[in-house]
Amino acid sequence: MTSKPLSGNAVIGQSGGPTAVINQSLVGAIEKLAPCRQIKRLLGAHHGVRGIVKEDFLDLRKIKRDVLERVAQTPAAALGSSRDKPDEAYCEKIFKSFAKFDVRYFFYIGGNDSADTARIIHEMAAATRYELRTFHIPKTIDNDLRVTDHCPGYGSAARYVASAFAGDDRDNASLPGVKINVVMGRHAGWLTAAAGLARQDDADGPHLVYVPEVVCHLVDKFVEDVARIYDRFGRCQIAVSEGVQDETHTPVVVALAERLGHRVERDSHGNPQLSGTGALGDFLGDYLKQKLGEGKKSFRVRADTLGYPQRSFAGYASSVDQAEARLAGRTAAEYALEGTLDGSVAFKRAAGRYRVTCFRAELKDVARKTKDLPRNFINRPGNGVTDAFYKYALPLVGELPVIGKLF
Amino acid sequence: MTSKPLSGNAVIGQSGGPTAVINQSLVGAIEKLAPCRQIKRLLGAHHGVRGIVKEDFLDLRKIKRDVLERVAQTPAAALGSSRDKPDEAYCEKIFKSFAKFDVRYFFYIGGNDSADTARIIHEMAAATRYELRTFHIPKTIDNDLRVTDHCPGYGSAARYVASAFAGDDRDNASLPGVKINVVMGRHAGWLTAAAGLARQDDADGPHLVYVPEVVCHLVDKFVEDVARIYDRFGRCQIAVSEGVQDETHTPVVVALAERLGHRVERDSHGNPQLSGTGALGDFLGDYLKQKLGEGKKSFRVRADTLGYPQRSFAGYASSVDQAEARLAGRTAAEYALEGTLDGSVAFKRAAGRYRVTCFRAELKDVARKTKDLPRNFINRPGNGVTDAFYKYALPLVGELPVIGKLF
Repeated sequence: MTSKPLSGNAVIGQSGGPTAVINQSLVGAIEKLAPCRQIKRLLGAHHGVRGIVKEDFLDLRKIKRDVLERVAQTPAAALGSSRDKPDEAYCEKIFKSFAKFDVRYFFYIGGNDSADTARIIHEMAAATRYELRTFHIPKTIDNDLRVTDHCPGYGSAARYVASAFAGDDRDNASLPGVKINVVMGRHAGWLTAAAGLARQDDADGPHLVYVPEVVCHLVDKFVEDVARIYDRFGRCQIAVSEGVQDETHTPVVVALAERLGHRVERDSHGNPQLSGTGALGDFLGDYLKQKLGEGKKSFRVRADTLGYPQRSFAGYASSVDQAEARLAGRTAAEYALEGTLDGSVAFKRAAGRYRVTCFRAELKDVARKTKDLPRNFINRPGNGVTDAFYKYALPLVGELPVIGKLF
Repeated sequence: MTSKPLSGNAVIGQSGGPTAVINQSLVGAIEKLAPCRQIKRLLGAHHGVRGIVKEDFLDLRKIKRDVLERVAQTPAAALGSSRDKPDEAYCEKIFKSFAKFDVRYFFYIGGNDSADTARIIHEMAAATRYELRTFHIPKTIDNDLRVTDHCPGYGSAARYVASAFAGDDRDNASLPGVKINVVMGRHAGWLTAAAGLARQDDADGPHLVYVPEVVCHLVDKFVEDVARIYDRFGRCQIAVSEGVQDETHTPVVVALAERLGHRVERDSHGNPQLSGTGALGDFLGDYLKQKLGEGKKSFRVRADTLGYPQRSFAGYASSVDQAEARLAGRTAAEYALEGTLDGSVAFKRAAGRYRVTCFRAELKDVARKTKDLPRNFINRPGNGVTDAFYKYALPLVGELPVIGKLF
């Protein structure tokens, strides 16, 4: 693995939906790269691949130590992010910019699409025998990257969601009713599953958890589930992923809109808008009122869509997630400095007491495809999570809030 | 103020929308009352006035010290809360229950309606020469009680809102666009005003703040405001109270629904549903897209309704608010034990370094009416808050999140 130090410039970029710890990875990479003499210039790309193409760079060595430390603590992409998913032509432009600036080290912090961008660019470099060490540093609140045990960003989002549910369950015990909370996750239910991490016993919410991996039978099972819990506890707290679908693979928000005679917002391509709107929660609430409210003197139903604070709430990141995101950034830099050509940083969980070690994953194995919540993390009826999931997720969220009860 | 110790039982109840520190006040009162020999039984009313009428009580002396301490840290009403606003007949029942159980000390933790309930019951007791020491312990995230400098519960909600906005502003700088966040507050803008407490400079959001105390000119001023900020910073973060109204005193959510051809959910009395729905944020977003999006290649507009986590998020209360809520509970107990007959605990802010002292307010001065955000806390154009507000609110929220920026 040791080779003659490759001399040239380095570029770091951030991509996709931000997390509370994406800047920890940035600072981790900077810490490792900044002292190295073979790195001539250490550049940050403004808004990811856009900044590379526009040649919009920031000199990362000029940032003072105390500013870097504050940036590490701050949610969202300090360099600016981008939603661009480069095709071959776009990657060509990126590679040209790298060749022009003698960039020999490229670090891209992002999800599976960013891993794919890194893969394409690395292949272009290899094809022209341009030595470019290319590393993907994982981040996503969705926790849906393959190969790795879990993703930086997930633990903090999970901590936020668990704390929101824990407090909200106490609120819903104070003034009992049905409470629906819609959690981010279009395709994978990892974050929604985290809702119950602060639970102490069976009476605690969330009493029902619906994830995109399991079909949501709106007509019968869903209403029955809620009625059963409500009869038992006098209240019901529900966690539902924004991407849940019914038995015909129709998004639940669309299916409900049809039933209730509501309009569904659609984007310019005609696709229903699933996030950035309170519609799913509102429709689920209306549906339950219609189905279960009749004849009940007071049947209180409320819905919240937890929204962007899940990924961006300031001052409440998981300390475990922070340390691991920093480690992922440092490790990517180490791999590149050691002479490794490309890869993605992945975590492996040691047996026994929780501890992770890093290993190099192939870019192609992390790129594009994603990882669903496995079946053994979802209970048999498909409306909750299992102890195996809690065991998996608890170490990732760091400290959970103190909850005390009188009833 | 010293009189012969009044012997009898004591009842504590919690009322209205919970806060993150309402249990601190409960525990503060228990700490003071539990050791007193003249308090025969120390009872908690399950679900406020309902529990009193139903004779559903909990023996508060039986709760272990460590459980009490965990309860103090937990959001929402540990005794259960109630939305009942007792009329004379209801108060009569409460008073009968008190007489039956020889209750001589009554502590009611709640907002202005709870102060009014305490006032009515105390007058009934006085009219029949039944000695009942009756104290209201303030709590509300709305911060709208009169007489007191500020209310327990507000500092924690304000800390949550400020941290949500600070992180969300960094998110919106990462992937620039217009971001609307709807904040709790039907009549008063105190909580919405707190959105900017973590701001470091003029470029930081929230760039615009709309509160119910100021008319929202939807047609011209609002759209102009957003366009101006967006042109200047390439992004715009907006804080808006759920209760904002237009120039005809129509709730903005209703005015927008009419403009956009949307339906507004109404309750059984025909009143538009203002909270517990994402409609205001969604409608404001649609309206801005319609007015400003035309011809722009990418005009990203997103809306979140911050919802119940504002009052119930676990593990993130303001340490100042926690201590003050505990103090309010202890002080109410002290007043009653000293022989004072009735009142509400109020805070006075000392000059110089932040510090509060308590004083007794008259129940009638705190009951029913509320306190708006004063005009000098709102900027001249009515779309932001002033330094005078920041100076007022900053000491209440305790520690704010660290924010570091590269751009």
